[in-house]
Amino acid sequence: MYIAKLIRQAKKPVLLFFIFMGLGSTASFAYENNGLTKKALKPFKHLSKESATCASCHRNEHRSIYQQWGRSKHFGANVGCYECHKADASDPDAIRHKGFQIAVIVSPKDCAQCHSTEVEQFSKSHHAKAAEILGSLDNVLAEVVEGAMVFHGQSPVAVNGCWQCHGSKVKVLPNGDLDPTTWPNTGIGRINPDGSKGACTACHQRHEFSMKQARRPESCGKCHLGPDHPQKEIYEESKHGINFYANVDRMNLESAKWVAGEDYDAAPTCATCHMSATIELPITHDVGDRISWTLRPAISQKIDAKAIKMGKEVKPWLSRRNDMKTVCSSCHSSKMIENFYEQFDSLVNLYNNKFAKPGASIMAALKEEKMITKVPFDEAIEWTWFFLWHHEGRRARHGAAMQAPDYVQWHGMYEVAHRFYIEMVPEIKEIIEKAEKKGNHKGAERVRKLLDEILNRDEHKWFLGKMDKKTAAKRKAARTNFNKRYIQE
Amino acid sequence: MYIAKLIRQAKKPVLLFFIFMGLGSTASFAYENNGLTKKALKPFKHLSKESATCASCHRNEHRSIYQQWGRSKHFGANVGCYECHKADASDPDAIRHKGFQIAVIVSPKDCAQCHSTEVEQFSKSHHAKAAEILGSLDNVLAEVVEGAMVFHGQSPVAVNGCWQCHGSKVKVLPNGDLDPTTWPNTGIGRINPDGSKGACTACHQRHEFSMKQARRPESCGKCHLGPDHPQKEIYEESKHGINFYANVDRMNLESAKWVAGEDYDAAPTCATCHMSATIELPITHDVGDRISWTLRPAISQKIDAKAIKMGKEVKPWLSRRNDMKTVCSSCHSSKMIENFYEQFDSLVNLYNNKFAKPGASIMAALKEEKMITKVPFDEAIEWTWFFLWHHEGRRARHGAAMQAPDYVQWHGMYEVAHRFYIEMVPEIKEIIEKAEKKGNHKGAERVRKLLDEILNRDEHKWFLGKMDKKTAAKRKAARTNFNKRYIQE
Amino acid sequence: MYIAKLIRQAKKPVLLFFIFMGLGSTASFAYENNGLTKKALKPFKHLSKESATCASCHRNEHRSIYQQWGRSKHFGANVGCYECHKADASDPDAIRHKGFQIAVIVSPKDCAQCHSTEVEQFSKSHHAKAAEILGSLDNVLAEVVEGAMVFHGQSPVAVNGCWQCHGSKVKVLPNGDLDPTTWPNTGIGRINPDGSKGACTACHQRHEFSMKQARRPESCGKCHLGPDHPQKEIYEESKHGINFYANVDRMNLESAKWVAGEDYDAAPTCATCHMSATIELPITHDVGDRISWTLRPAISQKIDAKAIKMGKEVKPWLSRRNDMKTVCSSCHSSKMIENFYEQFDSLVNLYNNKFAKPGASIMAALKEEKMITKVPFDEAIEWTWFFLWHHEGRRARHGAAMQAPDYVQWHGMYEVAHRFYIEMVPEIKEIIEKAEKKGNHKGAERVRKLLDEILNRDEHKWFLGKMDKKTAAKRKAARTNFNKRYIQE
Repeated sequence: MYIAKLIRQAKKPVLLFFIFMGLGSTASFAYENNGLTKKALKPFKHLSKESATCASCHRNEHRSIYQQWGRSKHFGANVGCYECHKADASDPDAIRHKGFQIAVIVSPKDCAQCHSTEVEQFSKSHHAKAAEILGSLDNVLAEVVEGAMVFHGQSPVAVNGCWQCHGSKVKVLPNGDLDPTTWPNTGIGRINPDGSKGACTACHQRHEFSMKQARRPESCGKCHLGPDHPQKEIYEESKHGINFYANVDRMNLESAKWVAGEDYDAAPTCATCHMSATIELPITHDVGDRISWTLRPAISQKIDAKAIKMGKEVKPWLSRRNDMKTVCSSCHSSKMIENFYEQFDSLVNLYNNKFAKPGASIMAALKEEKMITKVPFDEAIEWTWFFLWHHEGRRARHGAAMQAPDYVQWHGMYEVAHRFYIEMVPEIKEIIEKAEKKGNHKGAERVRKLLDEILNRDEHKWFLGKMDKKTAAKRKAARTNFNKRYIQE
Repeated sequence: MYIAKLIRQAKKPVLLFFIFMGLGSTASFAYENNGLTKKALKPFKHLSKESATCASCHRNEHRSIYQQWGRSKHFGANVGCYECHKADASDPDAIRHKGFQIAVIVSPKDCAQCHSTEVEQFSKSHHAKAAEILGSLDNVLAEVVEGAMVFHGQSPVAVNGCWQCHGSKVKVLPNGDLDPTTWPNTGIGRINPDGSKGACTACHQRHEFSMKQARRPESCGKCHLGPDHPQKEIYEESKHGINFYANVDRMNLESAKWVAGEDYDAAPTCATCHMSATIELPITHDVGDRISWTLRPAISQKIDAKAIKMGKEVKPWLSRRNDMKTVCSSCHSSKMIENFYEQFDSLVNLYNNKFAKPGASIMAALKEEKMITKVPFDEAIEWTWFFLWHHEGRRARHGAAMQAPDYVQWHGMYEVAHRFYIEMVPEIKEIIEKAEKKGNHKGAERVRKLLDEILNRDEHKWFLGKMDKKTAAKRKAARTNFNKRYIQE
Repeated sequence: MYIAKLIRQAKKPVLLFFIFMGLGSTASFAYENNGLTKKALKPFKHLSKESATCASCHRNEHRSIYQQWGRSKHFGANVGCYECHKADASDPDAIRHKGFQIAVIVSPKDCAQCHSTEVEQFSKSHHAKAAEILGSLDNVLAEVVEGAMVFHGQSPVAVNGCWQCHGSKVKVLPNGDLDPTTWPNTGIGRINPDGSKGACTACHQRHEFSMKQARRPESCGKCHLGPDHPQKEIYEESKHGINFYANVDRMNLESAKWVAGEDYDAAPTCATCHMSATIELPITHDVGDRISWTLRPAISQKIDAKAIKMGKEVKPWLSRRNDMKTVCSSCHSSKMIENFYEQFDSLVNLYNNKFAKPGASIMAALKEEKMITKVPFDEAIEWTWFFLWHHEGRRARHGAAMQAPDYVQWHGMYEVAHRFYIEMVPEIKEIIEKAEKKGNHKGAERVRKLLDEILNRDEHKWFLGKMDKKTAAKRKAARTNFNKRYIQE
């Protein structure tokens, strides 16, 4: 069946012909050259002759790779070096190596020879488009603000930073080597020489490709950690993470079938909720498939909002959420799940309404009124705002999504509030003053009014000392009461 | 014996009657309805009929919960769903479910049916009062500064943040459902519908309640991590943590009896030092029982200081410390322990005297002289001071308590010093200047004098360039000497 | 053989004589006193009589230490308490204990009785000199800025912070006790009473000294973590760390011979790359042996640069790098390794040229022109610059060295750029202005020119709004194109 699949999906039938038929007669193959080689090939009788030839050298040259592969399912299925690394002479990154036409990079197109369903799912995902961020704001950061185009025309910050998660556009040098600015790279949205997008090794690490490894939270932590998207740290604080680390030996991580509630029940990993099979759902390699909010942008949106705006049809956010709920229901009652989503939504909406929308509207006004330059990141307020939504605001939202209270509060909303009231508001006032001095009265007036309107809203007026008397009295009573109870007890 | 205990402690004798006697005759029970149900009950003969009935559905509905329970000691002791979830009709959160009177929340009162000693110990602890923080300063942060009362009259920041660690006051809606602002919640000081305080599941995660899980550091890390109380991170840096992760397979974490030095000796976890039994001490669920300092407030105090001030009798700090020392002595000599406590105390005292007391005295003066408003957190200096003691100062103190040098220094005192000299001092000066301009000469004068007096103290005068000549010369010599040695070697 | 080695290396032959010969006759030994003691000694027949005597008490007094030792290789080799803790009467820290002359501290000199090669390698390493930092800048931080000399004449910050990693200079009190300011301490460069440098227990934790523990990343994380040198966190994000945690059961960590590619191949730990044997390299206890850059100082240098400048001969950086490459080649092709080093170097050079050298030149000019005081850390810009290179710049460089993209970017270069443009540049301008006002026109002019020259460089001029038109147009086109692709897809 594997072989049938190989033939069915083969893009390179001529080469496959050699694999199955041309064994004794193709004098061009290196492995025919002498008796010594033949002896070296003996332990690899089950492999294609090409892979056997590869292995006979590489088991000495790169022992660890050889051993990792030796533990893989690939080995058991007679999938050797050549089955994955073979190339057409017309492939942009094809090289001749010991008489074979091969490519260093194994792309999703190559993996799709056998794993077509997975590659198809992945290709539709947001992950597959991660390298397209190249033209976005983040790239200005890496190429202009933090870096410079000094490494063969690229920025070392992009090469060592951004692209290692997002993926590079791999470039083949005239001599067939891979351009060091673009490789090594296992960014999840890597644009490969064959035009395919993605790097399966972003998650399935070479050369064992073990499910156990891919299903662990650390795999996602290759990118999903740090000040701006600390999903791994959040998971570790959550009860899900606590149970995982306490029960890792019961997680059955090596089982091919890995259905929550059937094959394991001690804890979910990232994969469980976002990708893996449940009793009701199939496995998916589109990690957004069960996500209802996008918490990435400054103002959170339902995940299908942009598509709807553009008239495109995608899986609606509610269907995604309903799918996620079936995952939750392996361990939780429907009432608990409903209540959880109410709690989570409330935090996202609060963040959106109290800080994100007001902040965004002021930033837009400042730009429109030319009160800040067109150049991004040359003024303090641009960084202030970026820290607020891109770092702190995300931490709070992700913390609520995955139930890590310290990320909601101390790593999150506490920092957001400090950034807004103590940094952003004074900076806005300073900019207004400056504009006034420069004669931009219209701009100054517009932003002053806007800020004034925002700070006089119910949720902000405390900052102006305008908390209404009833609330103030109630709060004072609560505190007095607390002090009495707490201190006397 | 278990059953005897159940009867002895039962608060709901009528229901217990049904458990033991009323099996065949109580027509109201759902499990009598048909032969199918009877067959479903067969594997659960050892359970009460009520629990058997629950299990016969839930094993399909919530497989993971069912399996987790199946691995628990509860299962082995014939303690099923009903034994914990049963309720009186008069219980505020009692609901009818398939003919049974049950409650979703299992409170410490319920757990105390069998685990009365543990609940009693816990009830006396600081942990049990964690929800009372609701009226405190932190709540102003969540409800006013960071959040707003927009989620059914509560702040989403409190709901998703504070309360998930401290505990909510669980509210039952008129229809019997639990209010989504207050549940799901497993905060350690949760105020339950039955009036009891606490959530045993804060640490003993459902539905396995495994000791292995509760004894691991990750359990405490559900709340004790992050910028303001990074105990988990500190433990991970310490030699205790290093040995734990290297020897987790030798920790004997599943043993019922778990006496340090008898049942394991490779490393201590949080539980070892703060709760578990040693050769000399019994287990306790009052986590403060062996703690001599409270490092929580701005100015650290001996843990019994407040009680003494209020004329209450509590376990003296020295007894607590002596108990902790017996834990240490499983692995350390008495001289090492003595010296450790000298080191630890020295850091706490330094922090108190050099930064905390001076900072607190200035903040108090600013408030008394009306140089800052009454509104908390509307001025930069209030945040500065809060960051200093609540975040950075705690990190340094906790780092010294548990021996993580990077938390003492880079995460701790380095940040404290920067906050004090580079942020707080200039902010104080600016406030003095403003007060002067506004005509508050008395206030300005008082704070100027106070700041002056502080900065001229021995430990601060370096900042004014007033280091005494002898010290300066000695320091210069030391550095010259160092540079010679270090660079020439 | 072990015994032969002991004799060969013994510095204390008189004591060794007792171990091998003087068993029945030395009436001064406590173990002769009664029959009870004799019985207690029975299980320890294989040990020296001295160690047997120690053990007969300590197995009750300090059970965990006794058990840890019982699992160690030392136990198997009949190396007991006395073999390590014995002392000459002339040793500065020798004490009489139950009739024996012993020392609490076991120094590298003691360990060298058997492990002379390791101690010799270690003694040449940078690690061994870690306590010499005492006279350096960091010490001013701990002793003056953050702390004060209030703990028996030392700073609690140094005692609990710096020295716990770097090592204290252990002081023996007149009564023979160890000074609590200097012990407990297991800093890697500890200066011991016998004059030797180092603490083997910094990495090989007492009293099991297990290889499994020392080889794990947590061991290095005792010091190599935190905001200024987060190597442990970086490792955890890297693919190396991901594979380690997924495959820890296959790491063969307890094997005496531990050759990458022979004894394990799933992942490298810190030890693998920096210390352990490969097929081509022997094990080394000089952790700098394979390191080509020093990323510690403000401006990174090749690791042999300082030595060359001083006319000393050391292993050249290129040899070190070549050795490291042989480690890499266990799992990676030579082309991948070459490309990796190009990527890594590019980031270090970018950081050096764009931020570190300019920053350092301005700081030097400010000092020379007396525009900042001589007192370190009394002005904001000194902290700003220190944060830039010591914290953020190191994070970026270490992130590139060990392939953790989030440390290069969000924890690293993003923070560096923010610190430089938004904090340091305005602070420089303010200092220039102040100098001008004070009449220091020469200084003001010099620094103004320097800053001007720096900001007009190709890599900085974007900040002045001077990006050249061609680049600006190209960038705009890229973004337009991106927006089209990304949003429409």
